[in-house]
Amino acid sequence: MPDKITSVSNPRIRRLVELRKKAKLRRETGLFVIEGGRLCSDTPEEFISEVYVTEEWMKNAPEKETAGFRNRPYTVVTEEVMAKAADTATPQGILCAARMPSYSFEEMIKKKNPLLLVLEDLQDPGNLGTIFRTAEAAGAAGILMSRATVDLFNPKVVRATMSAVFRMPFVVRDDLCADLAVLRRAGIRSYAAHLGGKRAYDEVPLTSGCALLIGNEGNGLSEKLTEAADEKIIIPMKGGAESLNAAMAAGILLFEAARQRRHA
Amino acid sequence: MPDKITSVSNPRIRRLVELRKKAKLRRETGLFVIEGGRLCSDTPEEFISEVYVTEEWMKNAPEKETAGFRNRPYTVVTEEVMAKAADTATPQGILCAARMPSYSFEEMIKKKNPLLLVLEDLQDPGNLGTIFRTAEAAGAAGILMSRATVDLFNPKVVRATMSAVFRMPFVVRDDLCADLAVLRRAGIRSYAAHLGGKRAYDEVPLTSGCALLIGNEGNGLSEKLTEAADEKIIIPMKGGAESLNAAMAAGILLFEAARQRRHA
Repeated sequence: MPDKITSVSNPRIRRLVELRKKAKLRRETGLFVIEGGRLCSDTPEEFISEVYVTEEWMKNAPEKETAGFRNRPYTVVTEEVMAKAADTATPQGILCAARMPSYSFEEMIKKKNPLLLVLEDLQDPGNLGTIFRTAEAAGAAGILMSRATVDLFNPKVVRATMSAVFRMPFVVRDDLCADLAVLRRAGIRSYAAHLGGKRAYDEVPLTSGCALLIGNEGNGLSEKLTEAADEKIIIPMKGGAESLNAAMAAGILLFEAARQRRHA
Repeated sequence: MPDKITSVSNPRIRRLVELRKKAKLRRETGLFVIEGGRLCSDTPEEFISEVYVTEEWMKNAPEKETAGFRNRPYTVVTEEVMAKAADTATPQGILCAARMPSYSFEEMIKKKNPLLLVLEDLQDPGNLGTIFRTAEAAGAAGILMSRATVDLFNPKVVRATMSAVFRMPFVVRDDLCADLAVLRRAGIRSYAAHLGGKRAYDEVPLTSGCALLIGNEGNGLSEKLTEAADEKIIIPMKGGAESLNAAMAAGILLFEAARQRRHA
């Protein structure tokens, strides 16, 4: 018989709620919460720490989602307990506590001609998640994030990554300006997406090692980080639009790099 | 003395709440609600029907936001009334009822080499809004939306457009398949973004009149609409990513068209 939890005030359930809500506890424990059949079944097994399911879900969810969980320990919870533990308004009936993947900056920049993304203080969870998903699809080697960036393991961010959080190497950094100097010495050129750029993003060579810089949603890149980059580049825009959504700007730059690399 | 409303049950306030919540009432009246200093001040004057502000906002908001409203009729409301009328959790203190812009499909396709976007049943408000903002920046001539697409005048969509809703021509259509046939006769080639595409999106010519098709977030394009298009094109992806966010896919295609057109 699997383990069963029927009370919403069970300490393990309360800890899941805290893990969902508190970035500090996530950092301390190295754990975070993932929800839903698709996301949980796409999570590599070695990252899964605890599994919580409703009986309903185990019985009725698609076989491709439940298969990976039948032969490992899981805890059955009532619908009410699942509703308490889950972040989503209509939880699907499965939720896992997962271990955070962890990567090294040094390894990241040793790759051949790496395509890197540098994010300064992004705040919107949907944007950060979408950027991870898009960066993976574009073949990026890694993502550098400033310490003030929204927490990658926030449930909203995790959902928007569509599991790319487990496949896209990333590091959280304290001094991005210093990092750009390290990149320069490693032969990786940095480009700041900026309205003051002279060359358009498709007029610079993105086939060698390069780092694309994207700034905060409201304020763009800081002057300091912009000046620390090797070059400002612009995404030409028409109409009355003054800027692009930050995730969109990142995606357009990343896929231009992917396009150039496919044709190189 | 400007008109003043102090009661949350004032019929005009109740109507604003209904306008926010009900797509049907918006369609019937041709009105919708826009919120916040930036969005309201970016709205072309001819579209503004009613203006509601708090005294606090008129006194303390930046001059560039309040300037356009000082010399036209407005209604002062209390903070409490504003909180009731507004969709956002922390309303800025200004809200307008605006008239919907309206466009003709026939005019749209008469433009020279139009770059069109065709959206089938998109459901996420943030995606639709971001697509409008991005399409304007890419220089698109117009957007066709299926009837089942999320309502463009939903407050969340409007916010995400960053006022592009007033600058980007659009039409809501009942039969996109029939429309593609009309486009074909007008010399406008249609491309369905599809995993089964043979050519990559950057290997097809997008400098002449063309229409880019994007499908629903969960299901992609319907088979029927895919078959009705002139060609399937693929956005090559790496890693474990199976798809891109719908708005991201639209932006990558639109900016590839813009790139080709800049170099043509």
